[in-house]
Amino acid sequence: MDTYKIIEVKQSVFEDNDRQADLLREELKRDKTFLVNLMSSPGSGKTTTVLRIIEALKDEMKIGVLEADIDSDVDAHTVSKTGAKVIQLHTGGMCHLDADMTKQGILELGTEEIDFAILENVGNLVCPAEFDTGASKNVMILSVPEGDDKPLKYPLMFSIVDVLLINKMDTINIFDFDLEAVKERVKKINPNIKVIPICAKTGEGVEEWANWIRSEVKSWNE
Amino acid sequence: MDTYKIIEVKQSVFEDNDRQADLLREELKRDKTFLVNLMSSPGSGKTTTVLRIIEALKDEMKIGVLEADIDSDVDAHTVSKTGAKVIQLHTGGMCHLDADMTKQGILELGTEEIDFAILENVGNLVCPAEFDTGASKNVMILSVPEGDDKPLKYPLMFSIVDVLLINKMDTINIFDFDLEAVKERVKKINPNIKVIPICAKTGEGVEEWANWIRSEVKSWNE
Repeated sequence: MDTYKIIEVKQSVFEDNDRQADLLREELKRDKTFLVNLMSSPGSGKTTTVLRIIEALKDEMKIGVLEADIDSDVDAHTVSKTGAKVIQLHTGGMCHLDADMTKQGILELGTEEIDFAILENVGNLVCPAEFDTGASKNVMILSVPEGDDKPLKYPLMFSIVDVLLINKMDTINIFDFDLEAVKERVKKINPNIKVIPICAKTGEGVEEWANWIRSEVKSWNE
Repeated sequence: MDTYKIIEVKQSVFEDNDRQADLLREELKRDKTFLVNLMSSPGSGKTTTVLRIIEALKDEMKIGVLEADIDSDVDAHTVSKTGAKVIQLHTGGMCHLDADMTKQGILELGTEEIDFAILENVGNLVCPAEFDTGASKNVMILSVPEGDDKPLKYPLMFSIVDVLLINKMDTINIFDFDLEAVKERVKKINPNIKVIPICAKTGEGVEEWANWIRSEVKSWNE
């Protein structure tokens, strides 16, 4: 039996998304729930990365996951097996989540018992970058097979994230990917970005990301 | 010296995109220009695939390329070296192209001397699927590293394309990718889809795609 709930999120009625996002962020702060908005292209390894971080942190904090997808619940099904509380959000064709849609998910998830929540956004490097979800921090994944030119082509996304995880590092010798060039390109548009190379499949680098979350959860609760 | 032009496409003023798309298609038919709208996630290998198909067909037909990107002209720069006529379209943050934006590109490209034109759409599996560009046919690329579950998550895109190219086939043994499962999933939502496994890097499978284009260009001119 699957232990996750599926909700069809309704399109937002609020015109001022930034205001709704600020309100949600204040509520999350009050409830001591640190929310990460995780964004990437389709197929960069978001779900495997979520599984790894749950594994690394589940004995230290209560974790909740919002899985956003246009259709299907394959990811919610996978993530629910970890024991984390999971809500599947169906966006009904929408290419991104806004603050109100995130709020609908957070209400279902409940914040009282959740220390760290992850919103797995719709796989898309364009539209999600334009909408503040109300999350505490933004994290994105770029996977090695996608190529090192992506910061040049999708600059907005790279400019709004706090952490860039570079995933599938085990394939760096197969693909023509220049890690230093990526770092240089992203620091030019986002000087404070933290870049962490990982391999979600093997677990390489995940501890560094876990340490960042530990430290952020602590600050969020102060 | 670069031999391509960059144009900043303006947001469409037309409410009825489907009507504009039909008009553009009729014009292309009259001008004997076969236009393929090529869509995929960021980093699936669209540009390398475009380079390969130009190489395969350039001695048989006149080829033009519209490179759509939110920012940068790295792809136009690369493709212009083949000698094909290239126009870089900057979408100004827009996540897709509609028929009017495509028309702006086609006007710059000129159709009189072009037999086969390729529109490299913005890297995005969601929004481009919702807008008929006026192209003769729709083609998409799914690359092996993205995973075999994508038809379940982005069904609209897979349902509207005539051809699905499965790229980076040289990495199928590294990634956990079930080609037969993908075929089954896409045929369920799009029974007439043609699936062609390719490797744009090595050229494997490109001849089959070239044959499809040869045959379509011929029908388009009848």
